[in-house]
Amino acid sequence: MSAVHVLNGPNLNLLGRREPAIYGTATLDEIHAILEARCAERGVSLVFRQSNHEGDLVDWIHEAGGAGAPVILNAGALTHTSIALHDAIKGADAFVIEVHLSNVHARESFRSRSYISPAARGVIAGFGPMSYILALEAVFENELRKS
Amino acid sequence: MSAVHVLNGPNLNLLGRREPAIYGTATLDEIHAILEARCAERGVSLVFRQSNHEGDLVDWIHEAGGAGAPVILNAGALTHTSIALHDAIKGADAFVIEVHLSNVHARESFRSRSYISPAARGVIAGFGPMSYILALEAVFENELRKS
Amino acid sequence: MSAVHVLNGPNLNLLGRREPAIYGTATLDEIHAILEARCAERGVSLVFRQSNHEGDLVDWIHEAGGAGAPVILNAGALTHTSIALHDAIKGADAFVIEVHLSNVHARESFRSRSYISPAARGVIAGFGPMSYILALEAVFENELRKS
Amino acid sequence: MSAVHVLNGPNLNLLGRREPAIYGTATLDEIHAILEARCAERGVSLVFRQSNHEGDLVDWIHEAGGAGAPVILNAGALTHTSIALHDAIKGADAFVIEVHLSNVHARESFRSRSYISPAARGVIAGFGPMSYILALEAVFENELRKS
Amino acid sequence: MSAVHVLNGPNLNLLGRREPAIYGTATLDEIHAILEARCAERGVSLVFRQSNHEGDLVDWIHEAGGAGAPVILNAGALTHTSIALHDAIKGADAFVIEVHLSNVHARESFRSRSYISPAARGVIAGFGPMSYILALEAVFENELRKS
Amino acid sequence: MSAVHVLNGPNLNLLGRREPAIYGTATLDEIHAILEARCAERGVSLVFRQSNHEGDLVDWIHEAGGAGAPVILNAGALTHTSIALHDAIKGADAFVIEVHLSNVHARESFRSRSYISPAARGVIAGFGPMSYILALEAVFENELRKS
Amino acid sequence: MSAVHVLNGPNLNLLGRREPAIYGTATLDEIHAILEARCAERGVSLVFRQSNHEGDLVDWIHEAGGAGAPVILNAGALTHTSIALHDAIKGADAFVIEVHLSNVHARESFRSRSYISPAARGVIAGFGPMSYILALEAVFENELRKS
Amino acid sequence: MSAVHVLNGPNLNLLGRREPAIYGTATLDEIHAILEARCAERGVSLVFRQSNHEGDLVDWIHEAGGAGAPVILNAGALTHTSIALHDAIKGADAFVIEVHLSNVHARESFRSRSYISPAARGVIAGFGPMSYILALEAVFENELRKS
Amino acid sequence: MSAVHVLNGPNLNLLGRREPAIYGTATLDEIHAILEARCAERGVSLVFRQSNHEGDLVDWIHEAGGAGAPVILNAGALTHTSIALHDAIKGADAFVIEVHLSNVHARESFRSRSYISPAARGVIAGFGPMSYILALEAVFENELRKS
Amino acid sequence: MSAVHVLNGPNLNLLGRREPAIYGTATLDEIHAILEARCAERGVSLVFRQSNHEGDLVDWIHEAGGAGAPVILNAGALTHTSIALHDAIKGADAFVIEVHLSNVHARESFRSRSYISPAARGVIAGFGPMSYILALEAVFENELRKS
Amino acid sequence: MSAVHVLNGPNLNLLGRREPAIYGTATLDEIHAILEARCAERGVSLVFRQSNHEGDLVDWIHEAGGAGAPVILNAGALTHTSIALHDAIKGADAFVIEVHLSNVHARESFRSRSYISPAARGVIAGFGPMSYILALEAVFENELRKS
Amino acid sequence: MSAVHVLNGPNLNLLGRREPAIYGTATLDEIHAILEARCAERGVSLVFRQSNHEGDLVDWIHEAGGAGAPVILNAGALTHTSIALHDAIKGADAFVIEVHLSNVHARESFRSRSYISPAARGVIAGFGPMSYILALEAVFENELRKS
Repeated sequence: MSAVHVLNGPNLNLLGRREPAIYGTATLDEIHAILEARCAERGVSLVFRQSNHEGDLVDWIHEAGGAGAPVILNAGALTHTSIALHDAIKGADAFVIEVHLSNVHARESFRSRSYISPAARGVIAGFGPMSYILALEAVFENELRKS
Repeated sequence: MSAVHVLNGPNLNLLGRREPAIYGTATLDEIHAILEARCAERGVSLVFRQSNHEGDLVDWIHEAGGAGAPVILNAGALTHTSIALHDAIKGADAFVIEVHLSNVHARESFRSRSYISPAARGVIAGFGPMSYILALEAVFENELRKS
Repeated sequence: MSAVHVLNGPNLNLLGRREPAIYGTATLDEIHAILEARCAERGVSLVFRQSNHEGDLVDWIHEAGGAGAPVILNAGALTHTSIALHDAIKGADAFVIEVHLSNVHARESFRSRSYISPAARGVIAGFGPMSYILALEAVFENELRKS
Repeated sequence: MSAVHVLNGPNLNLLGRREPAIYGTATLDEIHAILEARCAERGVSLVFRQSNHEGDLVDWIHEAGGAGAPVILNAGALTHTSIALHDAIKGADAFVIEVHLSNVHARESFRSRSYISPAARGVIAGFGPMSYILALEAVFENELRKS
Repeated sequence: MSAVHVLNGPNLNLLGRREPAIYGTATLDEIHAILEARCAERGVSLVFRQSNHEGDLVDWIHEAGGAGAPVILNAGALTHTSIALHDAIKGADAFVIEVHLSNVHARESFRSRSYISPAARGVIAGFGPMSYILALEAVFENELRKS
Repeated sequence: MSAVHVLNGPNLNLLGRREPAIYGTATLDEIHAILEARCAERGVSLVFRQSNHEGDLVDWIHEAGGAGAPVILNAGALTHTSIALHDAIKGADAFVIEVHLSNVHARESFRSRSYISPAARGVIAGFGPMSYILALEAVFENELRKS
Repeated sequence: MSAVHVLNGPNLNLLGRREPAIYGTATLDEIHAILEARCAERGVSLVFRQSNHEGDLVDWIHEAGGAGAPVILNAGALTHTSIALHDAIKGADAFVIEVHLSNVHARESFRSRSYISPAARGVIAGFGPMSYILALEAVFENELRKS
Repeated sequence: MSAVHVLNGPNLNLLGRREPAIYGTATLDEIHAILEARCAERGVSLVFRQSNHEGDLVDWIHEAGGAGAPVILNAGALTHTSIALHDAIKGADAFVIEVHLSNVHARESFRSRSYISPAARGVIAGFGPMSYILALEAVFENELRKS
Repeated sequence: MSAVHVLNGPNLNLLGRREPAIYGTATLDEIHAILEARCAERGVSLVFRQSNHEGDLVDWIHEAGGAGAPVILNAGALTHTSIALHDAIKGADAFVIEVHLSNVHARESFRSRSYISPAARGVIAGFGPMSYILALEAVFENELRKS
Repeated sequence: MSAVHVLNGPNLNLLGRREPAIYGTATLDEIHAILEARCAERGVSLVFRQSNHEGDLVDWIHEAGGAGAPVILNAGALTHTSIALHDAIKGADAFVIEVHLSNVHARESFRSRSYISPAARGVIAGFGPMSYILALEAVFENELRKS
Repeated sequence: MSAVHVLNGPNLNLLGRREPAIYGTATLDEIHAILEARCAERGVSLVFRQSNHEGDLVDWIHEAGGAGAPVILNAGALTHTSIALHDAIKGADAFVIEVHLSNVHARESFRSRSYISPAARGVIAGFGPMSYILALEAVFENELRKS
Repeated sequence: MSAVHVLNGPNLNLLGRREPAIYGTATLDEIHAILEARCAERGVSLVFRQSNHEGDLVDWIHEAGGAGAPVILNAGALTHTSIALHDAIKGADAFVIEVHLSNVHARESFRSRSYISPAARGVIAGFGPMSYILALEAVFENELRKS
């Protein structure tokens, strides 16, 4: 099985230090560590990245898609504005699970549209860091089904 | 821990026999059996119900909320039309995880609005029967955090 | 004079126990008792019902309309989604006063549309249980005018 | 040939007694009798039902779909609000002809959208009780084509 | 009884040769022949026309309305764009039944609005050439009622 | 208890003489007299005013709010266009009950939005002059609750 | 015949001195003089007024309507925002001709809606001061038809 | 001065015989006669035409524009749907006055948009046949100003 | 190879004489001559037509489609309003390249929607007469690919 | 240099006493005093006014525009509803700076549109009383640039 | 006091050389120099940056927010599309003043929405380079208030 | 003549390997080679670039605009979301031809809006790699016209 790619978009580097009422107190490094451990148990390697540049995320999705690697994508605010990410997923034929820490549907109305969802396999939102873990379970489950 | 309530809305009784391209081949009974097994492992009891009547779902959410029991809710088409379910969750202060078998965001535009999401703890969509299992994991995880 | 029919829709059975900041602390039973007393003073009988099923409310409106009985209707969330209730009032030529405990116009935008209002005689909203009492006054007043 | 199922939604039980300017003076029983006669001529049995509950209509569509029986559906106001009926038709793979007594397009704007139409074989609206008879003709014609 | 006027709008001359998946394999001439036969049985004459010009259809509706003749109108794409046809029907006080071969509501969103419907007696859509035949039945039925 | 302020907006001076089908035959003076009598019974003084100027209504709401006096406000057409009245109520922290003679929801669509409602305690509409009397009852009831 | 009332709304006092490219170089006084002369020829008296206050215009429409006098109304920007003027015309049953100096439909989109038009007898726009003169002709013509 | 061109669009040939409540009892021939007389008084020739074809109206506007002749245009329903007429006026640099017999703004919402208005010099609507006469006055007035 | 059909819609006969700032100074005849020369070089015949009637364009598209001839279509204003042209292209299975002289996207908002585009092979806009020449190149290129 | 005109709209007379969380604790008199002092330093006179009447503001803008005096305008709620103020600024060719105490863009959606902004020189919002002072600086700066 | 961060978004490096009618003739370097001088007077250091990358701006806002430094942000076109910048300001709890050289509200409609405004302290627009200076004043004023 | 700049946006590096049904099988390198050859024939140099970063495209447009070089721009998904590219073209006064491989108008509705079009000279879409070649022809043609 290819490495799992966990890709994080704009502002997620701030996680844990700001607005804990919405995003919780876990930092992105702590989430990284938890996922690392879960992947190690399975003998799967993990690629974990963050960028505030839309272009970096596009590049990384291309990379993962080219390698046939599953992607867990928290595109942050780009979720709602980036058709480029939509096209990257479609274009690279990547297997992508969209995750969000918060329940985006209970926030500002401009967060109600996701360009990622129509191109993604599924969506998991609202469980804090647990959203990433559930997505990882879904990735493992999907691999089993293929083998 | 209270029993987990898994509530299913209109047309889910047809599951597995119709439109397998969208909904997969598992029947609702098979999903019931899988969840039953998972709950048994944890020593948790399971309430698993389906109805084509909005009013039944409202009643059942009240019942679960009153018992402090977590709810996994697949409201089917009522997801997109029922403010009554929204109010039931809010009114009964129920802990609800919204699940969907298919990725509703990649289908007709009239499925893009969910009245359940703003009242739910989180959303899991697009993984077929696996959506229920992931939701169950989220319920267990949440219970651990409380204890 | 026919009995006054007070019909309550989804989630109103939760009244007084949940979300008191919005709906107040009076239970539906207490509202029932107050209206019962007021009707007794006037020698008028009272039919007081609640259901979480739209179909029950349609049936009851037919029943009241057929008996020429005035209706005080708090349709809860169905107010905003049920064209069937609109048609029931029009079809049964029922005299209906729409009531709401809260000021629905100061809440979520999806509560801004009422399908009941265009078919109702009038609307009373925002006074808590007093909304029902004022509606009862309006019913009595209307009866006087007819006699 | 399976029995023809004629399913009627909310408020159609009032037919003939109320708002004759819009709906005509024929009662639902009279329509039932006419269709009964027409079916008898053809040696086809008829199931004729009415309910004010959306859930009942969903159940009945499942039943007809499961039996391979053609459905003539006048969903009344649910036509414009029920995605559950849409899904029921699709899910049960039912052969459904949508009928309306009145020309719904010449009435309130909230009646301009039909969730039934995209799932139905065809639509017949505006001919009063004749709408049902024309639908029955279409059912017979369709059966001939299959045989 | 006046002759029945069957009027066909733009592109219907292509019928049967193009896009049979949507419109079926019957040509407009074959539909003409079937309707001719049905009318002959009843001793009623038939006027059957097609044009790609909106103005011709307006003229023909005036002509039919002036003669008190019933019209079966398949306006094709003009259904969705021509207020002039709407006005022609209203202005000529014509008895018009709107027909469509396909179920227009299951196609592109720009076909969801009909300017013909609010001016027509009724609508029949989705039955292929049978739509015309059902409309003819409705015309005959209506004539009987008048006589 | 402070005097009750009953404030009337544009065109209400025409009441009783024009469009009696919508607004009834009672004049504003007659409504004034009825309310005067009701207030006298309670030993409460009444301020009753009408103006066609938005600015006057803003001034009067400030005055009532400053005096801690309850307001019954029929803002007429300004209900649908005046954010200034909304701000006046909020700014002066006035206790305001919005009243309408007619059922505004059953009329033109441009009357469906009220800027008053989100700032008001409650709404009473559709009972003709009785709307004012019911509002007065609500004011008295509210005073009792405070004392 | 009653006096003709020509009522002018906000900013029309600036006429002729500002933005001549849009409104022409004639002042409101010059328009007054021309209309005065035309009325004198007919032996009809003229009431010519301007105000920047919506309330004044409401008052004046009431006055004209009460006297059965025809009104030529250039409500300026209030045309697009004032439901109160709409109600004043309807309420006072006034005969009103709406005029505009410029062709409002060729300007900003927020000028495309007129609340006056649905209540007015007719509309004349785009002819500069000639718009008033044409309106006066229409008033005279209408008087002739009545006599 | 060039001849005045009065161009009439779809359905105006029905004038006087149909829907007199909306359009009055004058026929198009009678309007023609009145305008003919008025033009004769001024020694101006008149071109008066009607067509149900949009293309004819486009041709005629080109012709008038090419001859420098003023146009009085009642485009009927094409007013609301024809960008081609808009472009014809602009392209032929024609002087066009838009007229309507009825007050289009007080009718169906789909009549609220005019593609003619932004390209026309002015608009006169709601005065029945008098609308044409007022437009003719405006044409004469405009000619005077040029000379 | 079949003749190339170049079809021009409403107002294009005015080309070169009017609004040169938008459409340039070349006349339609000049464009015809240039295309004629280019086709002659290739030994391909050319059909070059213009009409202000939508129906003519529909007829011509049918003709070209039936002959398997490629079409270069400048539908003028009909681009934005004619679903009939959309259907004609689809129905006749015609190979159509949509051209515009001006950059329609930089003009009025009502020109932003094209019913032609979704049915066309490609779009070329904004190059003046060069748009036609580029389209011709695309036609030749496409022919080469087929052979 | 002309006097600076600071014009305040509806409800600003309440400033400092109500809703201090949004508007701060400074009264309008205190703001007046601060601006007075600043103007005195520069030897410039100040006109400082408040009214709850739209018509007064229109009058005052005309007056300032006529005198060539710069205007600092806080139109309060009229910002969002008054096209008359827009026209007044344009018509009087006034130099206007729009100010708001609060950040209107972070409040209710009906405050998102400003009719003042497109006619104003600039906008300053969200700094409390400091918004007025910054506007005054902008006025002085502009005067320097002219001299 | 921390350094003031002045951050400039896409295309602002072109300032002064292009479209001077809209943006003025000052270059970004000249604005930098002026602000540098003003800061030097106060003994405050200045960070002045420009980037065409949204990601750079997000990074810089994080940096400033982390240092407790005030930000003056001209996000250029990203103002209207970037939710990431909105989240960056919220997430980094940065004190941000939004500035624009031009009055964005008087330009294309797609510039009417700002994602920055709801997250910013205030907005200053339309004063050319003076907008930056006024913002700097607001920053200094705010610092004084804190000390 | 300056070098021709061909600029490609996000995901175009994937060309030829993914979704060939939509985008064809040619790679971006192959397109580069074809254009290189065409330019060599003319003795014109070519700059051919691709980036997934919006900021890079903005920079490159500035560069080309500054050098007076023509630009062929396929902005990919940024076409539909980037006002920054719009501003870059306008700000740098660049001569830009917008190209698309696919017919974007026949795909998802969120691709229907282009921010590039209003700032570009022309648009060529739907011809696969041929779109670039046609654009190159348009560039050469334009150069000839200038010389």
